Amino acid sequence: MEEFLQYMKPGERLDDLQCGGRYILQRPDMFRFGTDAVLLAHFCRLHPGDRVADLGSGTGILPLLLSARQPEATFDAIEIQPGSADILRRNVQMNKLEEQIAVHEWDLKEAPQRLGYSQHRAVISNPPYDRYAGQEATVHTIARHEVMCTLSDVLETAGKLLMNGGKLYMVYRAQRLTDLLEGMRRVGIEPKRICPVQPSPDKPTNLILVEGIRNGGRDILWLPTLCVRDESGQFSERMQRIYAGAYVDE
Amino acid sequence: MEEFLQYMKPGERLDDLQCGGRYILQRPDMFRFGTDAVLLAHFCRLHPGDRVADLGSGTGILPLLLSARQPEATFDAIEIQPGSADILRRNVQMNKLEEQIAVHEWDLKEAPQRLGYSQHRAVISNPPYDRYAGQEATVHTIARHEVMCTLSDVLETAGKLLMNGGKLYMVYRAQRLTDLLEGMRRVGIEPKRICPVQPSPDKPTNLILVEGIRNGGRDILWLPTLCVRDESGQFSERMQRIYAGAYVDE
Repeated sequence: MEEFLQYMKPGERLDDLQCGGRYILQRPDMFRFGTDAVLLAHFCRLHPGDRVADLGSGTGILPLLLSARQPEATFDAIEIQPGSADILRRNVQMNKLEEQIAVHEWDLKEAPQRLGYSQHRAVISNPPYDRYAGQEATVHTIARHEVMCTLSDVLETAGKLLMNGGKLYMVYRAQRLTDLLEGMRRVGIEPKRICPVQPSPDKPTNLILVEGIRNGGRDILWLPTLCVRDESGQFSERMQRIYAGAYVDE
Repeated sequence: MEEFLQYMKPGERLDDLQCGGRYILQRPDMFRFGTDAVLLAHFCRLHPGDRVADLGSGTGILPLLLSARQPEATFDAIEIQPGSADILRRNVQMNKLEEQIAVHEWDLKEAPQRLGYSQHRAVISNPPYDRYAGQEATVHTIARHEVMCTLSDVLETAGKLLMNGGKLYMVYRAQRLTDLLEGMRRVGIEPKRICPVQPSPDKPTNLILVEGIRNGGRDILWLPTLCVRDESGQFSERMQRIYAGAYVDE
């Protein structure tokens, strides 16, 4: 771990991802990845040779986890915020993943022009969930609210990046399900697989994991609702299996 | 019960609905109501004075149950199939509900012209779930497949019947969630409340209960996923409460 210290800056924290020896730098006072990113990483099914774009990569949690799960995929990690992109870049270097993860400090809307249309086999995104109501645009606000990009921006960009039959994997706030499914269909990405996530068996779904296929056929395959915790407040068996490395649909 | 025998025809069966002393005639060889209709009846929140249209009423299970739950609502039960409409009419007479339930043997697409636009406070529907692939159009096929009406027909009709702020309550096959939510929004009925229904905790959602509001604001309130049976195969506690008369969100 000492070798990693050279990559750290003041205010940052180093966490063990418990996944292929990966570590991640984060700023606890700005934005840290959550359960939603971990769930999304265990919902994606990437294949050798896949070129994958991560829209709004933050400090890179998704490519860091997914590059370990699928070492033969390559990633374009796109992040508009300079502070986050700086940490993201160092996370890639620190984990010696420069060959597998390219960092782009861009507005994600520019990605198709810069990376090419229909060149990606997969797009992943844990985008801002909340509508923007004009509050101060801090790093945290930008990560959580539609300040720099809206859901439509993310979906339109995904639609352009994905090749025919390519897959979009997203985690999103359950309240906005209609925006998500209608928006996907509007850009030609048909929702194909969905997993509702509840905090516990008696609390309503608050997150949705969704997989869409570019120009896919209609009809959705549901996964059983995932309860993060069981009645007793412990991580559920299924959640424990996921933290141990299982896919969400295993 | 003997007084009911005069309403029966050969091949029909009389069932106690366990709800306000109501009985229902059905043809077991044609189409019987299922759990989905019962769940929908316990998902609707009707109010005194509501005028309610049931699109594709079958033998009338929804108005029979809901007229007991909300005695001060009135119903337009619309059914295109003569055989079903005949049983529906006798079910209304047998339960002495002619004042509360009007039976219309119509194509539901004609309903707005005949009943008026924006006159209904609520629309309910347990419509055909499956796309039509050209098989023989039996009573059963027509009840289950989009032979006589598609999902779009149901939604467009609902959009015309409902007054501003009026509510659509539907149960639908979960696989077709995108068709449902996108279709609702397209006709100006915003999905507002949703309850996924799983056969058991480890089986995926197969039914969706949805409430939409004509010209409602965005964002969906989720109810906790309803499991019909528990791990042991018995009706779940929540399902038992529903059968005992509780609302789905109680």
